[in-house]
Amino acid sequence: MKNSEDKKYALGMIGLGTMGRNLLLNMADKGFNVTGYDKSEEQVALLKKEGLKTDTTGTANIKEFVNSLKTPRTIMMLVPAGKIVDAVIQELLPLLDEGDLIVDGGNSHYTDTDKRFLELQKKKIHFFGMGISGGEKGARFGPSMMPGGDKKAYKVMKPILEAVSAKVDGEPCVTYIGPGASGHFVKMVHNGIEYALMQMIAEAYELMKVGLAMPDKEIGAEFKKWNNGKLQSYLLEITSEIFNIKEDGDKDILLNYIKDEAKAKGTGKWTSQASMDLQSVTTCIDAAVAMRDLSKQKDLRLAVDAVYKDATKIDIDKREVLKDLEDAASFTMKVIYTQGMELMQKASQEMGYDLNLADCAKIWRGGCIIRAAFLEEIYEAYQNNADLENLLLDKKVSNQIKSTVNAARSIIIAAVKAGIGTTVFSSALSYFDNLKTGRMPSNLIQAQRDYFGAHTYERIDKEGIFHTQWQTES
Amino acid sequence: MKNSEDKKYALGMIGLGTMGRNLLLNMADKGFNVTGYDKSEEQVALLKKEGLKTDTTGTANIKEFVNSLKTPRTIMMLVPAGKIVDAVIQELLPLLDEGDLIVDGGNSHYTDTDKRFLELQKKKIHFFGMGISGGEKGARFGPSMMPGGDKKAYKVMKPILEAVSAKVDGEPCVTYIGPGASGHFVKMVHNGIEYALMQMIAEAYELMKVGLAMPDKEIGAEFKKWNNGKLQSYLLEITSEIFNIKEDGDKDILLNYIKDEAKAKGTGKWTSQASMDLQSVTTCIDAAVAMRDLSKQKDLRLAVDAVYKDATKIDIDKREVLKDLEDAASFTMKVIYTQGMELMQKASQEMGYDLNLADCAKIWRGGCIIRAAFLEEIYEAYQNNADLENLLLDKKVSNQIKSTVNAARSIIIAAVKAGIGTTVFSSALSYFDNLKTGRMPSNLIQAQRDYFGAHTYERIDKEGIFHTQWQTES
Repeated sequence: MKNSEDKKYALGMIGLGTMGRNLLLNMADKGFNVTGYDKSEEQVALLKKEGLKTDTTGTANIKEFVNSLKTPRTIMMLVPAGKIVDAVIQELLPLLDEGDLIVDGGNSHYTDTDKRFLELQKKKIHFFGMGISGGEKGARFGPSMMPGGDKKAYKVMKPILEAVSAKVDGEPCVTYIGPGASGHFVKMVHNGIEYALMQMIAEAYELMKVGLAMPDKEIGAEFKKWNNGKLQSYLLEITSEIFNIKEDGDKDILLNYIKDEAKAKGTGKWTSQASMDLQSVTTCIDAAVAMRDLSKQKDLRLAVDAVYKDATKIDIDKREVLKDLEDAASFTMKVIYTQGMELMQKASQEMGYDLNLADCAKIWRGGCIIRAAFLEEIYEAYQNNADLENLLLDKKVSNQIKSTVNAARSIIIAAVKAGIGTTVFSSALSYFDNLKTGRMPSNLIQAQRDYFGAHTYERIDKEGIFHTQWQTES
Repeated sequence: MKNSEDKKYALGMIGLGTMGRNLLLNMADKGFNVTGYDKSEEQVALLKKEGLKTDTTGTANIKEFVNSLKTPRTIMMLVPAGKIVDAVIQELLPLLDEGDLIVDGGNSHYTDTDKRFLELQKKKIHFFGMGISGGEKGARFGPSMMPGGDKKAYKVMKPILEAVSAKVDGEPCVTYIGPGASGHFVKMVHNGIEYALMQMIAEAYELMKVGLAMPDKEIGAEFKKWNNGKLQSYLLEITSEIFNIKEDGDKDILLNYIKDEAKAKGTGKWTSQASMDLQSVTTCIDAAVAMRDLSKQKDLRLAVDAVYKDATKIDIDKREVLKDLEDAASFTMKVIYTQGMELMQKASQEMGYDLNLADCAKIWRGGCIIRAAFLEEIYEAYQNNADLENLLLDKKVSNQIKSTVNAARSIIIAAVKAGIGTTVFSSALSYFDNLKTGRMPSNLIQAQRDYFGAHTYERIDKEGIFHTQWQTES
């Protein structure tokens, strides 16, 4: 009986690591008849132990797994990005029928997803690249999901995805994103924003800890206060909780024992590299990626520290700084999201993703790592104007920016005086200061390029391409 | 007689655009018997008109061209990077003999050069990727050249390259760089440094023009003064000359009529992207690339300008600023070169280029766009210590950095107050401030990553990989 069509499973998951198991358990909780497959019997056993009740033996037998699925089949993969994804697809292909659907739920690079999408299209297999954010807990109790692929095929999995996703105001944190690799692209930008927000919080921490010599307890309380205000966000929530975790018999907090070398899995770097290819400007993300890399050069930093330790005298007005820091963080956070949204807009135009930016903001309001109160306002801004060229042009956002930009200036001035490198704060402000300049000094760069390379230039007073013999003496 | 071996040419150039023709004329001036080939008869005619006296008919006949060369043949290409390079190689291959040498003198991406190097190695054809800097004039009268490829094959072209290159203290601005694509990699980094220096000069211009409301004549004089001091460099030299070129019947300078949209050919972007792949930190180059991209968004900037024009009140002490600007530029310039040198060092280790950084600095002292007095000190620093981990650790350099860093702080504070986005100045200082921190706040980033993604962390007090259940309440 177990293979008769009505007993078959609505969805099968390949890869039963924590994310895969949690997402399956989430689906089962919502009443879906789902099953899992993993090459490792141990992982299958873990799934059963954690409570998934299915008829499948869930062995390393992929044929049995595929045959146990309702047709057209929906097969989701949660395996490490890269060659493993291709290997799984190749293993699956001979077992599938036209019209079946493969979903890659990992953090694949969007160019890989593009290639797989096109390859599988030829074989009439639907392919979705789906970004999933929320970590282990999100997968178990409600993630934010960004599926991109064939629009027609989306309806097959829509009920499951909407049921398991996080909800905000009753609305699911998942929507059809767009064709091809758009889902993975949007997830990549999500992660880029995440890098910049995390670095911004780290810089605020450094200002309070080193610049203001605040005790850890007060720093944690400050972050908690921020999280109850306009900066409300998941990252601030967990940051304030991190300051509660004790170590060494309550004498200190664990944070002080963690090595200051920030690791990365590459999605932030991908975002900056893609942004440069699209000639988009994501200086806050670029800076966050660079600071992770710099953090890894610990030995070098210690050597440079020894040479320059007397180079900077800390001399800032502590009360002034703390007053302005929250507003400065609010300003910087808004610029970070602005750069991310603009990158998505550019990608949408250049790669034909036809993204609905309001929807992208909407599904980031819950479940994902960058969820924040501000996303409600981003959602609103793009609902009001789907073609909004830049978030800082939105009336409500621009009022907030105007009321906080001077605090950002004060904080950066304080940090510069104190010798504290607030790279993301500075990148946000200098992006803003250049963006609000109808005339940048780039005319000089064009003149230099024409001088040494005859690269020509345009003029402001007439059309055409011009070249000048600049050299006055020879 | 013309094809008898002693009448044959020592080198043949494919691609008779301005660069190719000028480099050939340079070789002929130095007494080498060289010839050129171009598909276009017009270009060949131009070469003859400009004075190259050769026996070759120089037609579109590539067979005749190849047969007119001394064996083993040395064939240089100066054609646009990309597919054209491959097309020329494919056209050449059937006509060549084992041991012949192809030199790609264009700005090819180093990964393309790597592929070509390996492919041609199989066919026993030597391949060099050679970066050439100096623009048209450099090609004609002495460029800086960065050849990478088979070391043994280098001796064939060494006499020609050394003869035509720029000279500093009698030493040629060319040397064997390393294997594979190392020559193109080093040239790419050269261009990345060039981007950052140009953006830095543009920001200083903006500070003087907008922040201090200085007349153009005074700005040009200031740049000229800088060029007579420790900032002496080709880019400042041409910048000061640019301020001399009049327009509109001497009433204004041409610079004021040039559109502020800076174009780019991509080598700066390549540098930043490669740097991110190598986990190197080149924030000044990243920022310069981003500012070129931002400059192109002219319509958006005008729109944002209209919204925010009253957001910033310019309020800085003009005398203070001008006093510090030269020192701040000197500080920033040193950080820019530091980041470039470190990227080359990282590439040398990761890709087995085995670069001699002293030699790289040495051949940049003349002929190329980034030539500057400071390169003499970089050369010296790496001569003193070939394994210098970071240029800022050099004693002489560190003394200069210490004596100028406070000026950099003052200038950035002034710019932040004035609402002028000095992105490269700020990137340089915040790189320095983070580099000189034995402990960055990146421990918080590791804690956050472990909190939401179970990514684990290391500790400062004991070895191992740790994970914590951070959540205090559920």
